[in-house]
Amino acid sequence: MSIKIASLQMNVITDKIKCIKYLENMLQKPELRGVDMLTLPEMFCSPYQSSAFPEYAEPEGGDLWQALSALAKTYGIYLSAGSVPEKTPNGNIYNTAYVFNREGHQIAKHRKVHLFDIAIAGGQHFKESDTLTAGDSITTFETEFCTMGIAICFDIRFPDMFSKMVSRGAKVILVPASFNMTTGPAHWELLYRARAVDNQVYMIGTSTARDYASSYISYGNSLIVDPWGKIIAKQDAAEGVNIVDINLDMVTKVRGEIPIL
Amino acid sequence: MSIKIASLQMNVITDKIKCIKYLENMLQKPELRGVDMLTLPEMFCSPYQSSAFPEYAEPEGGDLWQALSALAKTYGIYLSAGSVPEKTPNGNIYNTAYVFNREGHQIAKHRKVHLFDIAIAGGQHFKESDTLTAGDSITTFETEFCTMGIAICFDIRFPDMFSKMVSRGAKVILVPASFNMTTGPAHWELLYRARAVDNQVYMIGTSTARDYASSYISYGNSLIVDPWGKIIAKQDAAEGVNIVDINLDMVTKVRGEIPIL
Repeated sequence: MSIKIASLQMNVITDKIKCIKYLENMLQKPELRGVDMLTLPEMFCSPYQSSAFPEYAEPEGGDLWQALSALAKTYGIYLSAGSVPEKTPNGNIYNTAYVFNREGHQIAKHRKVHLFDIAIAGGQHFKESDTLTAGDSITTFETEFCTMGIAICFDIRFPDMFSKMVSRGAKVILVPASFNMTTGPAHWELLYRARAVDNQVYMIGTSTARDYASSYISYGNSLIVDPWGKIIAKQDAAEGVNIVDINLDMVTKVRGEIPIL
Repeated sequence: MSIKIASLQMNVITDKIKCIKYLENMLQKPELRGVDMLTLPEMFCSPYQSSAFPEYAEPEGGDLWQALSALAKTYGIYLSAGSVPEKTPNGNIYNTAYVFNREGHQIAKHRKVHLFDIAIAGGQHFKESDTLTAGDSITTFETEFCTMGIAICFDIRFPDMFSKMVSRGAKVILVPASFNMTTGPAHWELLYRARAVDNQVYMIGTSTARDYASSYISYGNSLIVDPWGKIIAKQDAAEGVNIVDINLDMVTKVRGEIPIL
């Protein structure tokens, strides 16, 4: 059984209406015809700045959520809507990934568990915890194809989250992300390939495109890795789409050949 | 604080006396002067064949063990004596890694936990469990420099073992190994680099050299990876030694910059 996945490396579009229009235009392109699932990057619709998250945050079910749900329904696709800042009634803000099914129903919601607080000498500094609250759940969900898992960016550094997703049956794991120009060249490919090989799953890494005008410069390099650890699709720095028919039989094959799970 | 490590990629020498003589000659070479620790590959002194393990196995404290202990004492070094087949009174055979200190005392003993049973279509087949029994412990030990961990080859595919070593304080992890021509090109570097980055430790991978005349063709490619995931020393297929002064301050630095532990 195979799934046609389109993983969209896009520039951040901070105007919500323009962002939805852009996605609609993308979905009408011939190369995206017949896609089963569209995946978007982390914080695709708000600036990646701790100070901006409160301003851009919406509650679950808000305007942006509604528009994304409608998009999934209209095009009859699974939509992993990257991540967005989510605001709760008690004032907390989360880095949240929603997933919608072909009817536009929310089938998963993951709040980034491991906030991105790093301070590398001569390199990237960032402190999500200035404005964000950490989630506390590992997230898997059911599709017509298989169980899938989802985590966000810095979560990928925690192997235990991934082995738990796999023990719940995940064969495909989505990780919307936005690495930077310090950790990207050093660790981006390595971490996606390692999670794929350790767990014998497909890993879908969807990043924002690189924008040198932004305060946070994303590494880009969106990629899809098979359960053997091979990169089967990859972008560079610019906008683009990885479109791949991923074959779930390969998960079974690799798990039979190297029985580590 | 730094440790001078020599990781010896050698051909298997199945004659025990010749093997010890070879190691003695190596230790007398000028480039190994002042080395704090010598690490050897998996099954460096017996054929890597399930059927050969019973014949070559010795109990702990046997002739080979004595000779290795004496080598550590004579040269005043820590000796990670790769791995050897170990026989117990009840008839079990293990793939066992002994570590000796500068006085020749055994300070660690790791029995391979995850036996190498793989069957890759069109690639490598092997079944250690035909003759070997699996160990059941995670192994760390103390040196004058820091706590270290040790695992053997296929164990490297199990991330949880490594995070447990690190929670016990390990800053350097030794993995004597012998990957093959199927999994080597695909996964060897990836797995050592991933364990280094996930655990922010030095990883020392010591392999047998490649011998096309052997029934099991080792990949070679012995390597040393720093806590940032960078390969700081590497061999190719042939015999050779990685000699590196590893700097333990880098462990502290990287753990401060990306606080994931």
